[in-house]
Amino acid sequence: MAKPFNRILITGAAGDLGGKLREGLAPLANHLRLADRMPIPDLQAHEEGLTFDLSDEAATIGATRDVDAIVHFGGASRERVWNDVLDSTIRGSYHIYEGARKHGVKRVIYASSIHAVGYHASDSHIDTQAPVRPDSLYGVSKCFVEALSSLYWNKFGIETACLRIVSCFPEPADRRMLGSWLSYDDCIRLVASCLTANYVGHSTIFGVSDNRAKLVDNSKAAHLGFVPQDSSEPYRAQVEATTEPLDHMAATTRHLGGWFVDLGHPDNEPGQ
Amino acid sequence: MAKPFNRILITGAAGDLGGKLREGLAPLANHLRLADRMPIPDLQAHEEGLTFDLSDEAATIGATRDVDAIVHFGGASRERVWNDVLDSTIRGSYHIYEGARKHGVKRVIYASSIHAVGYHASDSHIDTQAPVRPDSLYGVSKCFVEALSSLYWNKFGIETACLRIVSCFPEPADRRMLGSWLSYDDCIRLVASCLTANYVGHSTIFGVSDNRAKLVDNSKAAHLGFVPQDSSEPYRAQVEATTEPLDHMAATTRHLGGWFVDLGHPDNEPGQ
Amino acid sequence: MAKPFNRILITGAAGDLGGKLREGLAPLANHLRLADRMPIPDLQAHEEGLTFDLSDEAATIGATRDVDAIVHFGGASRERVWNDVLDSTIRGSYHIYEGARKHGVKRVIYASSIHAVGYHASDSHIDTQAPVRPDSLYGVSKCFVEALSSLYWNKFGIETACLRIVSCFPEPADRRMLGSWLSYDDCIRLVASCLTANYVGHSTIFGVSDNRAKLVDNSKAAHLGFVPQDSSEPYRAQVEATTEPLDHMAATTRHLGGWFVDLGHPDNEPGQ
Amino acid sequence: MAKPFNRILITGAAGDLGGKLREGLAPLANHLRLADRMPIPDLQAHEEGLTFDLSDEAATIGATRDVDAIVHFGGASRERVWNDVLDSTIRGSYHIYEGARKHGVKRVIYASSIHAVGYHASDSHIDTQAPVRPDSLYGVSKCFVEALSSLYWNKFGIETACLRIVSCFPEPADRRMLGSWLSYDDCIRLVASCLTANYVGHSTIFGVSDNRAKLVDNSKAAHLGFVPQDSSEPYRAQVEATTEPLDHMAATTRHLGGWFVDLGHPDNEPGQ
Amino acid sequence: MAKPFNRILITGAAGDLGGKLREGLAPLANHLRLADRMPIPDLQAHEEGLTFDLSDEAATIGATRDVDAIVHFGGASRERVWNDVLDSTIRGSYHIYEGARKHGVKRVIYASSIHAVGYHASDSHIDTQAPVRPDSLYGVSKCFVEALSSLYWNKFGIETACLRIVSCFPEPADRRMLGSWLSYDDCIRLVASCLTANYVGHSTIFGVSDNRAKLVDNSKAAHLGFVPQDSSEPYRAQVEATTEPLDHMAATTRHLGGWFVDLGHPDNEPGQ
Amino acid sequence: MAKPFNRILITGAAGDLGGKLREGLAPLANHLRLADRMPIPDLQAHEEGLTFDLSDEAATIGATRDVDAIVHFGGASRERVWNDVLDSTIRGSYHIYEGARKHGVKRVIYASSIHAVGYHASDSHIDTQAPVRPDSLYGVSKCFVEALSSLYWNKFGIETACLRIVSCFPEPADRRMLGSWLSYDDCIRLVASCLTANYVGHSTIFGVSDNRAKLVDNSKAAHLGFVPQDSSEPYRAQVEATTEPLDHMAATTRHLGGWFVDLGHPDNEPGQ
Repeated sequence: MAKPFNRILITGAAGDLGGKLREGLAPLANHLRLADRMPIPDLQAHEEGLTFDLSDEAATIGATRDVDAIVHFGGASRERVWNDVLDSTIRGSYHIYEGARKHGVKRVIYASSIHAVGYHASDSHIDTQAPVRPDSLYGVSKCFVEALSSLYWNKFGIETACLRIVSCFPEPADRRMLGSWLSYDDCIRLVASCLTANYVGHSTIFGVSDNRAKLVDNSKAAHLGFVPQDSSEPYRAQVEATTEPLDHMAATTRHLGGWFVDLGHPDNEPGQ
Repeated sequence: MAKPFNRILITGAAGDLGGKLREGLAPLANHLRLADRMPIPDLQAHEEGLTFDLSDEAATIGATRDVDAIVHFGGASRERVWNDVLDSTIRGSYHIYEGARKHGVKRVIYASSIHAVGYHASDSHIDTQAPVRPDSLYGVSKCFVEALSSLYWNKFGIETACLRIVSCFPEPADRRMLGSWLSYDDCIRLVASCLTANYVGHSTIFGVSDNRAKLVDNSKAAHLGFVPQDSSEPYRAQVEATTEPLDHMAATTRHLGGWFVDLGHPDNEPGQ
Repeated sequence: MAKPFNRILITGAAGDLGGKLREGLAPLANHLRLADRMPIPDLQAHEEGLTFDLSDEAATIGATRDVDAIVHFGGASRERVWNDVLDSTIRGSYHIYEGARKHGVKRVIYASSIHAVGYHASDSHIDTQAPVRPDSLYGVSKCFVEALSSLYWNKFGIETACLRIVSCFPEPADRRMLGSWLSYDDCIRLVASCLTANYVGHSTIFGVSDNRAKLVDNSKAAHLGFVPQDSSEPYRAQVEATTEPLDHMAATTRHLGGWFVDLGHPDNEPGQ
Repeated sequence: MAKPFNRILITGAAGDLGGKLREGLAPLANHLRLADRMPIPDLQAHEEGLTFDLSDEAATIGATRDVDAIVHFGGASRERVWNDVLDSTIRGSYHIYEGARKHGVKRVIYASSIHAVGYHASDSHIDTQAPVRPDSLYGVSKCFVEALSSLYWNKFGIETACLRIVSCFPEPADRRMLGSWLSYDDCIRLVASCLTANYVGHSTIFGVSDNRAKLVDNSKAAHLGFVPQDSSEPYRAQVEATTEPLDHMAATTRHLGGWFVDLGHPDNEPGQ
Repeated sequence: MAKPFNRILITGAAGDLGGKLREGLAPLANHLRLADRMPIPDLQAHEEGLTFDLSDEAATIGATRDVDAIVHFGGASRERVWNDVLDSTIRGSYHIYEGARKHGVKRVIYASSIHAVGYHASDSHIDTQAPVRPDSLYGVSKCFVEALSSLYWNKFGIETACLRIVSCFPEPADRRMLGSWLSYDDCIRLVASCLTANYVGHSTIFGVSDNRAKLVDNSKAAHLGFVPQDSSEPYRAQVEATTEPLDHMAATTRHLGGWFVDLGHPDNEPGQ
Repeated sequence: MAKPFNRILITGAAGDLGGKLREGLAPLANHLRLADRMPIPDLQAHEEGLTFDLSDEAATIGATRDVDAIVHFGGASRERVWNDVLDSTIRGSYHIYEGARKHGVKRVIYASSIHAVGYHASDSHIDTQAPVRPDSLYGVSKCFVEALSSLYWNKFGIETACLRIVSCFPEPADRRMLGSWLSYDDCIRLVASCLTANYVGHSTIFGVSDNRAKLVDNSKAAHLGFVPQDSSEPYRAQVEATTEPLDHMAATTRHLGGWFVDLGHPDNEPGQ
């Protein structure tokens, strides 16, 4: 049976999650074009590897040629100093969208983040229409790309699904993740649902597994057809045995962004 | 064990779906009174057949005598010229409600339609309280009956559940129906739930199966106890293999009403 | 200075309010075409009189030729038996909209009514997006025209402002009208605002003066630019001196529709 | 593996539901301190029994010493004369919260009731943020404790989960309970979820099993992680066989509070 | 012209505001019955004075005999120790409502307080339907009376307007009051509007003048017809000249309750 | 009397509106520091002039030293090519906020724009919490600054009022501006209100005069105390006499952003 796409571009493809995406999305396209700052290991026959920095306008735009859809997971993956955020996420994502516009790509799946809304309260059950409240420069740059993609939808007809991923890790590592965890498999289900949905337009969806405690409300994204299959529950006993209860008065407990809300300014902190 | 109703009137009972309703609702009543413009085939012992046009006031009111509940699926079932819509749905439904008022029938289950709200956006996730936005004369006539039944509840105490059926077919026939399909079995579950619910008052509910992609929000109808059991998912591979992806810029994709929004005025189109 | 319209059709032009509209709208058009079942008295040079029943399809459609806007105040003006409601408001308004469609009229101002939502609670402060809850066949027919005009906007590009007039009388006649009164002058301001607004699309607005007690919420209609100038307050002392306080437990007090909620079915009441 | 709490105080521990809580919560604490007006039967090694009236300030405050969490199910359990409500629920709960404040207890699980909102309509699908509308002095006293606990959270940092229990019985006893039933096992799941949730703050949640017909909306309480496992459905046939359908016009059907809305004033009714 | 009421009971009538109410409400009733713990000074011919404590059940119920409406401004007027709050506001208001029920009084105007919702954020623009978040025992007791009056409306048909007065003083005394001030004259307008409104049912309204900065939203109370005439603006220059700007990070600035949110527990503070 | 601020920095101070701000804000500060890419004409004794580009990090941060508040009107003032938008608004505003953080400035008044939400419908009456839908790169950059300022409030305690100015011109120049106009005087009132408000936190407000037709909803910004005094109404006759009615089907009419929604991509249009 014919695959739904001929060629999908995946940015940020060299890391762990990138590896999972390569594997999980293979059934959806004849070719996967894999881009990253780092070389892509172990290229398969149906894969093309590209190594460049998203701040490189020509290279980024060039990577979008002959592509049917873009899974844009590249750019800074956590809090960084301003110049890194500016180059990789703000300028880099602009290059991606300009590439899509110039080369007629119809749909983008973007790895946004819960940190675009990290200062909302943990018990506020925001839905995907709540105003942004970023908790970091990283979060601000995600807000920028969400706004940019909204423009490219309304003005240029390029669809984007903004995935506000909460905590995508191999397994829940602490008590907060009992509510915020997105399994790798559910992440792939999420991307695949958005790639194959009848209609995306400009949609936002929280990326979270079917954990028992639910912190955010995806009801306004139900047209995307994402149905998570995993849960943090099997890991609960182990997590509770090895970690302390959260301090219910701490800002990191009371806000969706978790420990991001306690980060200082990254330009002051040389380790970042 | 006693059945909950002695006699239920089903209008529009001669067609395919009518046949399913006859079978599915049999356990709920000692007698089914079956009405249609066309003769009812294969009457069973517990069934009574009546052939008349809903625009016939006396016949329609007469059909509601000695009835405990009405499942009103009759009237125009798709876009029609104005005079047909006027006679079958507007005048016909008025006759049904007058019959209910005069003969003391307590509850009506009405086959309304998504086309009462067909001009809402496909990603707007409207709930059952959203303002009407009909996409056809057919849809306007459904709005009329919904309003009429609201009056008969508030003023005369006759309960109605308005079922806004989306796409009730034997199986999903195209990509839009992957989100909009209502299986025949779920349709019967829906009618049966509304017939036996503790309290209906004047309620509206979307008639749609438990498809993966969800286009509308039934949370305000949860007191009716409808829990769909079917899904379009088993048909996905076949539908995707045999149909083209939807054009995401087309009005028919971007609105809940689908291809109804592209219909012209029916009086201009002799085929209807 | 050029007037904004060449010719406006006013239906229901023979009555008291019709006379006020003729006078108030004269500055907006070179010609006023005045239609009613009854002859129009005292025609002026800039006025054309037409006498016909709205149920007459050919006459009604003919009246819309060469017209730039329609102020549709005709049809049953209070609760009537079903056949009158059907002919004058339901069929009659369909003829008006067909005329607009066939003759390219761009904008309709429709006299809807609070009775389209008369069963909402008096203290619920509904806005113009609340679901309909009609209190009479009259109210149901208003719901029909609101739905019909929504279709003609979305499908055929004909704008309509639905004016849900509450109590339009020369002066407030009872205590309920202290909250619900629309002065004749404010009624004309309302119609004129809707005729000259930049953008109407399909809008709904409550027609009520700037009374001290406010029962409904027009905030979602503020793009129409209606600013009432009159108030019931100067009449308060007289009204309170000559009428009894309302019974706060009565259904007529507790619902927006007032005494309409206590009307029985009109076909049972020969006086109507 | 270490239990999450050293000592939990349970008030109202002598009754049937108290017995279930003793059993169900045992895995969560090394010690259960059980309080009631009546003696606690059959004390186990890990249990401490205390007999006192909640109106006894010193005894109640004393009972909260060395406690890590309080499951406050004591106080009047149905409509009572004013002085009983005042002493047991209003004064008694104040004593509980003063104890928590003075002894540094961090979290309280409070058995509030649907009767705090019993005058909302049965089809209004209120969520946990709807304004209170109590249906009895009992309900008013629950509103008081909900407000009091909100103060103790915001000002003193003591978390409370207010459980608005609907109908907690061994099995559904009538047709209303088909929608309102909370099984004993789900009640324990609910309490345990709230005890072990990462973050409670001041939260309200309806206590109801996963019945087919759903009357209230818990979506804003999803951070508490309560997932009911039971349903009234297996009892439906038996309930419908042995009870009459509800009168859909009765106030007791049309309001969430059920038969509480038909109770007169308790001081007039010596039986209460 | 006949006055709208024969006799109005005013509780808390001995203080400054009580004096203003005596004067302002005189045109509305033939007789004012004035009650307070302290003797009422300077009784006029149309006035009756009663001295008793609201915790005295018999005296309070007796004071409601032969009364047409109650303006209930008595009870603790600021944060107090628990026993004072319990006796004066909780028990005292129960006695008032029992008096109204036993003696057939139809309408109560109750002086509630912003402190029932004092922990909402200063920029949250809550309306009158927002959940309670009291900031003091005083605020909790106001929540109790609001809930109690809701019961007496729904069950016994006694209307109440709950006036959530923000800062009722002779003039704005600090910068917070530039937004929160209610002039004495506007307070009287508010009470008079609620006494003479067509329909009150159970309504809540914020008591605040027409200050330039608006902190709360009265749109859902517009049926009460309160239109404030005063503003803090004429006092702005003087207030700004004599007081420091607010600290925008302080809890007292960030919450509607102002300095109440920084009060400790009253039982710990002998001065209260 | 002491002025509320010692020194205010105004960026974008060299243009027409800048001149008005210099004049209008003079009463609020002992010193105005005026910054622009262009030299500031006619410096007064209380004014300091600074000429630099906002993309110059050191100069921009330096300009914020010893400043009590910042009125940030600099940056691209209409659609520009990407590199201009990036440098002047995105990088420039980051420099402003870093200056505020490093130099302890407490409050920023930011000239955002309706073009941050320009793709919302003209009749949608959005309030200040609606999700962003930018209509241009200019609008996207405004979204970025709004998000950035939200971070600096929540994490670093720097207040910002985001003024979404609609059409700030000397007078309304076309029919759209009858609804969207902000007079220069009202612009100054708006900035002054935000500078002197008790509490700003992170607030958004639409900048529009008191025009008869209202397109947006400022009710959630009422704590800022902005009360416009001007209206487009005196200009209506002249505007209507000299301009054509809007095409009600045009995208520029149907969206808040007006003609911005019809702009192509700026990098393709050398004139911009």
